[in-house]
Amino acid sequence: MENNQELEQLMLDLGQSARRAARTLASVTTADKNRALFAIADALLAAETHLLAANAIDVANACARGLDAAMIERLVLNASGIAQMAEGVRQVAALPDPVGEITNMVFRPSGIQVGQMRVPLGVVGIIYESRPNVTIDAAALCLKSGNATILRGGSEVAATNQALAKCIRRGLAAGDLPVDAVQIVPTTDRAAVTVMLGLHQFIDVMIPRGGKGLVSLVIEHARMPVIKHLDGVCHVFVDAEANLDKAVTVALNSKTHRYGVCNAMETLLVHEAVAAQFLPMIAPLYREKGVELRGCPRTCAILQAILGNGVRAATTDDWHAEYLSPILAVRVVDSLNEAIDHIETYGSHHTDSIMTDNFGTARRFLREVDSASVMVNASTRFADGFEYGLGAEIGISTDKIHARGPVGLLGLTSQKYIVLGDGHIRG
Amino acid sequence: MENNQELEQLMLDLGQSARRAARTLASVTTADKNRALFAIADALLAAETHLLAANAIDVANACARGLDAAMIERLVLNASGIAQMAEGVRQVAALPDPVGEITNMVFRPSGIQVGQMRVPLGVVGIIYESRPNVTIDAAALCLKSGNATILRGGSEVAATNQALAKCIRRGLAAGDLPVDAVQIVPTTDRAAVTVMLGLHQFIDVMIPRGGKGLVSLVIEHARMPVIKHLDGVCHVFVDAEANLDKAVTVALNSKTHRYGVCNAMETLLVHEAVAAQFLPMIAPLYREKGVELRGCPRTCAILQAILGNGVRAATTDDWHAEYLSPILAVRVVDSLNEAIDHIETYGSHHTDSIMTDNFGTARRFLREVDSASVMVNASTRFADGFEYGLGAEIGISTDKIHARGPVGLLGLTSQKYIVLGDGHIRG
Repeated sequence: MENNQELEQLMLDLGQSARRAARTLASVTTADKNRALFAIADALLAAETHLLAANAIDVANACARGLDAAMIERLVLNASGIAQMAEGVRQVAALPDPVGEITNMVFRPSGIQVGQMRVPLGVVGIIYESRPNVTIDAAALCLKSGNATILRGGSEVAATNQALAKCIRRGLAAGDLPVDAVQIVPTTDRAAVTVMLGLHQFIDVMIPRGGKGLVSLVIEHARMPVIKHLDGVCHVFVDAEANLDKAVTVALNSKTHRYGVCNAMETLLVHEAVAAQFLPMIAPLYREKGVELRGCPRTCAILQAILGNGVRAATTDDWHAEYLSPILAVRVVDSLNEAIDHIETYGSHHTDSIMTDNFGTARRFLREVDSASVMVNASTRFADGFEYGLGAEIGISTDKIHARGPVGLLGLTSQKYIVLGDGHIRG
Repeated sequence: MENNQELEQLMLDLGQSARRAARTLASVTTADKNRALFAIADALLAAETHLLAANAIDVANACARGLDAAMIERLVLNASGIAQMAEGVRQVAALPDPVGEITNMVFRPSGIQVGQMRVPLGVVGIIYESRPNVTIDAAALCLKSGNATILRGGSEVAATNQALAKCIRRGLAAGDLPVDAVQIVPTTDRAAVTVMLGLHQFIDVMIPRGGKGLVSLVIEHARMPVIKHLDGVCHVFVDAEANLDKAVTVALNSKTHRYGVCNAMETLLVHEAVAAQFLPMIAPLYREKGVELRGCPRTCAILQAILGNGVRAATTDDWHAEYLSPILAVRVVDSLNEAIDHIETYGSHHTDSIMTDNFGTARRFLREVDSASVMVNASTRFADGFEYGLGAEIGISTDKIHARGPVGLLGLTSQKYIVLGDGHIRG
């Protein structure tokens, strides 16, 4: 951008166009939205050559800038990735449309009827990093839920995103919907993010998807509500009355199914009554998978016999850590209370699971653990929109306001009250 | 406060105590909460003499400071006011407890069961002005919904609020609940508000109740989510196919039932097909009530014959105005579309009503008007927690996120996911 004023005007224009598009989108039919979604899927497949060429530019730039291999891997798009995107859009079209649903319509003593109608939020802003599939996933979910979207992706996939934007506009036009229903910020100027976060008159909610730096920036500067999750410090607690074989399976899956995801377990809590039996069962399996253990003193004492000095002593930092890598903190606790205290003190209110066969213990854990997902005898890895039956998710919220846990179409809507009368007045 | 550090420490202590109390409150039984609520009601009645004496101090101070009569009237507490407060608390006890309700529990293809459990938000901060009944209403609603509360009332009722706080603590203690479940900021230092708005680690949501100055301050400085409403610029649109007798009744009630409330009509829109008939029907009735009319050119032309020059020309400011007084803006519009455009352009998304006998017109208005309450053939004055059957309200939200419209007990809760398995892992 040549100067700040130009940038601000650009962002204002985006905001105004989005607001206009949102008004139209809010009352189009489900059939209209689905037709546009299918057209977007077709446009993606038709543009394969163009998309791959655009992505090659981003990859070449990333190599030239010396980005690390993991980063580059995340931004690469291939033919199968494009097919998956198109399939994802079709799956969103197949989801039930939440907009317009009227619920709880009742007659009140005054004679009026009162109920609620589900409506779009309006304009959703999404700021995200690298992976280009977010562009398509987010656009499809917002469109289906009747929201206009302003997307701001990472500069490292700018060419890919602009190519994707063209496919989306082509699909919207083919479906006779406003092409400004999905807009991608057309500049990589970082100042655009700050301007965007100030546009509360045009953007109803902001969703950051990316690392902690990005989320913190959004929390700091956003003048509109934010749906976010900061950390995924998830726990599995193996209770005194756990089935230990199942506990081994679940604790292994929660940690090793995938490491770099927010619903992976980061701390394993073990009741002292079963620690001496359970820890030697699971520790060799973690070692086999290459998972480094960091234990409390009791954990270290129990495992020294079988792992020698292979267990590092955990510090307070370990209880707070979201490793996103093959490292696991392990702590022996005296009781259910101590386990819950640990989770409430060090956890991130994302996903926590208990392994137990005791009904009352399970019931207390479900009630008292204050996390977006609380589980009994199941892997933390299930905390996911598809697994929960939401169809797809725009993110996982660790907030308590509005949407909590995996956020699907419903989380992108709100409910207004509707009142029907026949000339009723308040006495 | 002697210095800022002391103030910050005081507020931190309040926050930590509230967080501790919230953990206990989240899992106490409904019976426990109701017992405490009844004990609070009893404590209020028992403390009548003390409460009146404390209130007399506030009133004397207000007179000495030269506050205007309307302001002083709002802060006066009498025996009947105390009885009403106690009755209000008992009514909250009688409401169903939303906490712990499990909904939508289904088996997923993976074999896990997934559902949602309703839970308290945690700690609710409320910043409000003058009227002492807010202290009791807010404390009762938050307690019933399992939330701890930090209340900061206006300095002009500081003595009354501290006396009310004692009653609340007595009731909490009698009900064996943590006395810190409801705390009132014990200083009138204005800096305490700013400190409070920064305590996002201890306060989960902030609810401002008061004038625009207060709400703007909270929006500006709050580092946690806010449930608020800024303006109540409400409309009644008299459609071409309205029953004009009913339209007169509803438009009169919407404006004149009470002037200083957020759900009073501030702008009357009239379809041009019926303007020449309808406006002369209603204008004399407004004149009788002492309501000043400010009209668009067509309104002025129609009414000149019967009111002479009694109708002032409206400016753009009038379309934006929340008068909260006996003034009404009136505009003749060409169509339903123009009415909706006017509402979307100048309204505050609070409450808007259409008078029409046409089914399709009503259906479009309900769908397309983006307000917290949208009504057909009913007075805007119905936008209220009691009228909607919520039992009582902590405020009316014009936000789209989380709670919209009157906010009752449900708006003070959230839902977490719960997952039940039998050793299930993700494949």
